[in-house]
Amino acid sequence: MQRTSPTNHIFVGKKPVMNYAMSALIQLTQAGEVTVKARGMSISRAVDVAEIVTKRLGNGAFKIKDIGINTEVVGEGAEQRNISSIEIVVGK
Amino acid sequence: MQRTSPTNHIFVGKKPVMNYAMSALIQLTQAGEVTVKARGMSISRAVDVAEIVTKRLGNGAFKIKDIGINTEVVGEGAEQRNISSIEIVVGK
Repeated sequence: MQRTSPTNHIFVGKKPVMNYAMSALIQLTQAGEVTVKARGMSISRAVDVAEIVTKRLGNGAFKIKDIGINTEVVGEGAEQRNISSIEIVVGK
Repeated sequence: MQRTSPTNHIFVGKKPVMNYAMSALIQLTQAGEVTVKARGMSISRAVDVAEIVTKRLGNGAFKIKDIGINTEVVGEGAEQRNISSIEIVVGK
């Protein structure tokens, strides 16, 4: 489903939080909406990105529209485990 | 404000995730609702707690009702910094 939608998704990993915040802000000014996604330990950083974009940058132009959490299964066989994920939609 | 409300809050820190999941499940069976809260790096663990309680435990009786994120200021003077927080409301 996401493959046919516009690519306004930021997948947060282990880079410095400001890298993702700047990418998110660029997406927001271009597309008006961005979905910040993360899994596992990066979830905290995704929340930081959403908070920085809405509170510190963007002059109050953007806000949190929706937050969803989920469980994803990663790995196979004996390596298989559950990992939590988050999706934060930021828009006007 | 929270001090006058019922004490159905779980503050997630650095203990094993199952400790918080069990506390949350006890609150849920007693009060029907629990708010799972965390700050900073513990945010990922709070999401784990909410996901475990709704998906793995509780036989599907409970679901995520609301998720909010915020920024809190901690410390004073030169030590002052912003920290992200999350509140996940789980209920029937």
